[in-house]
Amino acid sequence: MSVTPEQQAEIDALRAQTRPTLRAVSDGMEAHLYKAIPVLDHGFVRVIDYMGDDAAICQAARVSYGKGTKSVQNDEGLIRYLMRHWHSTPFEMCEVKLHVKLPVFVARQWIRHRTANVNEYSARYSILDREFYIPDPSQLAAQSVINNQGRGEALTGEEAARVLAYLKGDAAQCYDHYEEMISQEGQQGLARELARMNLPANIYTQWYWKVDLHNLFHFLRLRADSHAQYEIRVYAEAICEVVRDWVPAAYGAFEDYRMGGATLSGKALECIRRMLKGEEVTQETSGMSKGEWREFQGVIL
Amino acid sequence: MSVTPEQQAEIDALRAQTRPTLRAVSDGMEAHLYKAIPVLDHGFVRVIDYMGDDAAICQAARVSYGKGTKSVQNDEGLIRYLMRHWHSTPFEMCEVKLHVKLPVFVARQWIRHRTANVNEYSARYSILDREFYIPDPSQLAAQSVINNQGRGEALTGEEAARVLAYLKGDAAQCYDHYEEMISQEGQQGLARELARMNLPANIYTQWYWKVDLHNLFHFLRLRADSHAQYEIRVYAEAICEVVRDWVPAAYGAFEDYRMGGATLSGKALECIRRMLKGEEVTQETSGMSKGEWREFQGVIL
Amino acid sequence: MSVTPEQQAEIDALRAQTRPTLRAVSDGMEAHLYKAIPVLDHGFVRVIDYMGDDAAICQAARVSYGKGTKSVQNDEGLIRYLMRHWHSTPFEMCEVKLHVKLPVFVARQWIRHRTANVNEYSARYSILDREFYIPDPSQLAAQSVINNQGRGEALTGEEAARVLAYLKGDAAQCYDHYEEMISQEGQQGLARELARMNLPANIYTQWYWKVDLHNLFHFLRLRADSHAQYEIRVYAEAICEVVRDWVPAAYGAFEDYRMGGATLSGKALECIRRMLKGEEVTQETSGMSKGEWREFQGVIL
Amino acid sequence: MSVTPEQQAEIDALRAQTRPTLRAVSDGMEAHLYKAIPVLDHGFVRVIDYMGDDAAICQAARVSYGKGTKSVQNDEGLIRYLMRHWHSTPFEMCEVKLHVKLPVFVARQWIRHRTANVNEYSARYSILDREFYIPDPSQLAAQSVINNQGRGEALTGEEAARVLAYLKGDAAQCYDHYEEMISQEGQQGLARELARMNLPANIYTQWYWKVDLHNLFHFLRLRADSHAQYEIRVYAEAICEVVRDWVPAAYGAFEDYRMGGATLSGKALECIRRMLKGEEVTQETSGMSKGEWREFQGVIL
Repeated sequence: MSVTPEQQAEIDALRAQTRPTLRAVSDGMEAHLYKAIPVLDHGFVRVIDYMGDDAAICQAARVSYGKGTKSVQNDEGLIRYLMRHWHSTPFEMCEVKLHVKLPVFVARQWIRHRTANVNEYSARYSILDREFYIPDPSQLAAQSVINNQGRGEALTGEEAARVLAYLKGDAAQCYDHYEEMISQEGQQGLARELARMNLPANIYTQWYWKVDLHNLFHFLRLRADSHAQYEIRVYAEAICEVVRDWVPAAYGAFEDYRMGGATLSGKALECIRRMLKGEEVTQETSGMSKGEWREFQGVIL
Repeated sequence: MSVTPEQQAEIDALRAQTRPTLRAVSDGMEAHLYKAIPVLDHGFVRVIDYMGDDAAICQAARVSYGKGTKSVQNDEGLIRYLMRHWHSTPFEMCEVKLHVKLPVFVARQWIRHRTANVNEYSARYSILDREFYIPDPSQLAAQSVINNQGRGEALTGEEAARVLAYLKGDAAQCYDHYEEMISQEGQQGLARELARMNLPANIYTQWYWKVDLHNLFHFLRLRADSHAQYEIRVYAEAICEVVRDWVPAAYGAFEDYRMGGATLSGKALECIRRMLKGEEVTQETSGMSKGEWREFQGVIL
Repeated sequence: MSVTPEQQAEIDALRAQTRPTLRAVSDGMEAHLYKAIPVLDHGFVRVIDYMGDDAAICQAARVSYGKGTKSVQNDEGLIRYLMRHWHSTPFEMCEVKLHVKLPVFVARQWIRHRTANVNEYSARYSILDREFYIPDPSQLAAQSVINNQGRGEALTGEEAARVLAYLKGDAAQCYDHYEEMISQEGQQGLARELARMNLPANIYTQWYWKVDLHNLFHFLRLRADSHAQYEIRVYAEAICEVVRDWVPAAYGAFEDYRMGGATLSGKALECIRRMLKGEEVTQETSGMSKGEWREFQGVIL
Repeated sequence: MSVTPEQQAEIDALRAQTRPTLRAVSDGMEAHLYKAIPVLDHGFVRVIDYMGDDAAICQAARVSYGKGTKSVQNDEGLIRYLMRHWHSTPFEMCEVKLHVKLPVFVARQWIRHRTANVNEYSARYSILDREFYIPDPSQLAAQSVINNQGRGEALTGEEAARVLAYLKGDAAQCYDHYEEMISQEGQQGLARELARMNLPANIYTQWYWKVDLHNLFHFLRLRADSHAQYEIRVYAEAICEVVRDWVPAAYGAFEDYRMGGATLSGKALECIRRMLKGEEVTQETSGMSKGEWREFQGVIL
């Protein structure tokens, strides 16, 4: 369970009363505010606040380009133009603040995106809850035999059972000892900042994460991608749904130009030109390495 | 005049209709939204959007410190604690977007603060207006004789008159030639991106500038300081008034700990300790250079 | 002239003595150190310092991927793999520090790249030299009639002569008045921080600019591009030559995947797939706007 | 043991051959290059590369302030002036690249400093070694009874023994299961990216960390501070020793103005002024809260 009854009551209370504002309002985002979107077994993503909408992107672009943008007939066309030409600053004019509950090993990947503001729950000050990510059996993937970084088929049978038993048992035992070490009943109690080192990387943490739309798109392009680790991808996918409702035009452009697009090298473009003229191009005649050629085939077939 | 009648009508229209939101609302900031606060002869600062309030700072801090912050009785106490101990991340959870009209030489100082998002009016695409900053005679300061960076008394008489005549005359002539060069009547017309190079640094530009509260405080500490150049200081001071209304508790802490405070060196602290014990300390016995001692005297007297 | 005889003597002295180091050394870069590469009429780019080489990129990647990178046979292959898959952090492990002399209107574009360290000559403290960028007649371009942002053909005849006369005359007059205003002979002298506002945007400034290789490539992709303004493009091109000598493998990958490559949208990729199957695709059946289709044709033809 | 015999041989080989360079060289830093400074039970800090020295800081400052800095007689005086007045950009002109081996819970604190470049060992691709931080008994601190964040006295006797047994036993068991889960002998083997979630936060990781001197000083001020957690403080202290040898003048200024200094609030300064005039000031008459007053006493007594 991701959200406690107390948290749900708090969410309901926050959603019960609106207040008037003169600011830009995104109705799609208002519908999401404060609600917890469940992710994995105990995690969630919640929108806590936002700034701006599709119109705010255009407004900022028009400050920059002034009369120069008149020729683009409408907001959606302008947004697509900006995305296509990597004019990123107008997208930076929108901002979102999320509350995320996630396993520590996911948090460690996530935090590598440096252009965001973060307040994380501190295990120096406070005691972590007994909540661990235990993969669904369908996600208990074997190491890929092709790819150092990838996953193969899901484990089955006895091997799967043993893995789950280890993950559950070790988490439980480490947490029992964590609690025992910090306990102040009949003993001094180890400092929290030390005791936490006994906790495995599937324990849940939480944070407030605030980011502008340009940098969020960069995060989503990498983390909602099929090569991203499943456990972070599901968070990215949940955020994608939110962003689609928040700034539909910007999200549409992002889907077409970033998620659905591809960057081709000079060599790859040259191959396409030759192929469109009817030439049969092979890896050997392409000038590409085998790896590049395989990836290129994946894009054009 | 800073704002044209068309702009004023647009501001009035934007302020005429409120919409309901579930987000945190700062009443003090709602009163500022869209309005133009005049700065210098043709400049302004306008709040276009904001995110968060004093409570949002505390909310983020409490995510981090959890039960560890219970002991701080109230929000204001917590905010002062965070400011005092340089816990900057909760302040990053608030964001503001300003529309600023300012002379180019001020913009050049301002942009050195890299941790903000900017969309500036582009003179590659668009034509700049004929608006130049001409200092008020009271601000026509002489070069300081003490300080390479500072200003002395205001110029007077014939010298002041000559300076004003140069500033006005050169601006007018450069702009006349700018217009003539880009004109397409009876000629091809020079590219805008080239013609702009003829315009002096007191021409006005404008931009959207979006920044989080922590980085805004850093900007204000440096630019609302008495050592900052007058022409950027007046912008910083206008923004201070806005921030005071937006997040009164955070602004109060900022005023006490940053604007009104001072960082003392180890040597300076040692001198204070000796002086409080009754010792007479002089520059010679302080271990400080003359410059440091003079600055130290300025702080403690 | 870009470099004074005094500066040249200083450069010669700096190049006259080597010292032993245990650090990674790039011979290609040592050949550039301190030398001024002339750009525009009075500008230059000089390499002041650098850190790392192609091997340093691989070394950092191998820390990350450990045994996972064994399969990539050599450094060049690894670097191409990193570039192709947007693994940017190993490129951040190289750093370069440049001394650049450039017109103010170019500096204003350049500084929008925020992920660099900058120390600029301060006209608050010091007096600017009488040096202005005056375009070569071949670069005196007309405003494009197609594109708000672009340049057309070079102006000719009387119009060109008039433009040059304005640029030269206004710069000279503004500088004369600048000098007169700050003069302390027989008068107080206007503060430098004020007098500078009379100077047009083609005056030269200079700065130290330090940046990592990943962010430098981002800068070069945008500024060495054919759509960049000529006056910044020539700086980017000069830097490209330096980078090619510094990290030849990384630069080669950058050329192929970034400068020579293109990002295609999902729609564009779908069109290519249809065309490769023999279908005749037109703008009308492509799902693209006219602008997108024109750009797409530019890439594949 | 921090360094394997193979690693030591590699270090010796790297230190065996110098090459000539025209760049600035810091002899103090050359003596550190590549060597592993042991930290904690298995960790280390190694300097891999550096750029700049004290003179480079002054050189950059002199580009900015030009003739304005002539009055400062020497480099050390200039560096102290820059540090005192928070002129941070010249310090950004120096850069250092470190190889650090550290426990994961320390890495999680460290990475919150966003203005650095990082390449971390990836447990998605590679297999982590069986190395865990086990505190020295003298560092097995109890939770502070005063301070949510702090440490009290070291645990003793049976309690200490039990804590050590838990930390060692759980780490060993979790690692045994990690190895078993990823093993491909007689089974498929769990994906590395999943198996790593079973490892506790005291396992060692390693990374390349590159940062400029200004941001490094910010890191050191926070992490070499007595309030920092011991396990990160020892890394900061090791780095302090390196920086002292690299840029002695800058480090001296940092020690006096940052590490040994203190920022006092407006209220605190007013109290000092009253006290220096002979007034007896108490917490009640100071205008400070109890917490502030206690901290203030700590500074001035």
